[in-house]
Amino acid sequence: MNETPQVENGFKNEERGKEGSDNVIYVGKKSIMNYVLAVVTQFNSGANEVVIKARGKAISKAVDIKEVAVNRYLPNIKTKSIVTSSEELMNEDGTKSKVSAIHITLAK
Amino acid sequence: MNETPQVENGFKNEERGKEGSDNVIYVGKKSIMNYVLAVVTQFNSGANEVVIKARGKAISKAVDIKEVAVNRYLPNIKTKSIVTSSEELMNEDGTKSKVSAIHITLAK
Repeated sequence: MNETPQVENGFKNEERGKEGSDNVIYVGKKSIMNYVLAVVTQFNSGANEVVIKARGKAISKAVDIKEVAVNRYLPNIKTKSIVTSSEELMNEDGTKSKVSAIHITLAK
Repeated sequence: MNETPQVENGFKNEERGKEGSDNVIYVGKKSIMNYVLAVVTQFNSGANEVVIKARGKAISKAVDIKEVAVNRYLPNIKTKSIVTSSEELMNEDGTKSKVSAIHITLAK
């Protein structure tokens, strides 16, 4: 009763506005099936849209995740958009590097 | 005079129909800049559309190529579509493997 759902909701809405989606899965070093399970779980929990985001070498893995999730587990989910971009990262020594990124949006 | 240009053209047109584009760049093991140069050269030679195709781990490289080519050398070229798919490959021992693929279509 003493929790602060308004603040929590406010934060969530802000996140939503920034990301354009409730459900974002960031692809890192775990195995493909970990992320596939995360995508499937999001949709089974009622999400209408899931975004898979990856940078650099993880981009190939993001495409694998999407292909396995949709072809094997989610036949009714469509690919809404695939967008690539360049993001600038700050290195530890203060120099900047550019890295490619991909956002794959899946939707019901 | 004894060459068979009809047959050759027929083949080329068939390829074109199948691929949906005159200019396809397959991403392999060469460095990113090799492929960037190929994309830039195709557009400078009058191509209206160039498709970058990659499979498996080369998918990340394909996205890098697109980002570098468009952001650094081809400011007027747009990303027409990005499509991913699963392709089935026959292994040497007769078994089949699935591999993810990406087709990035750039256009004037």
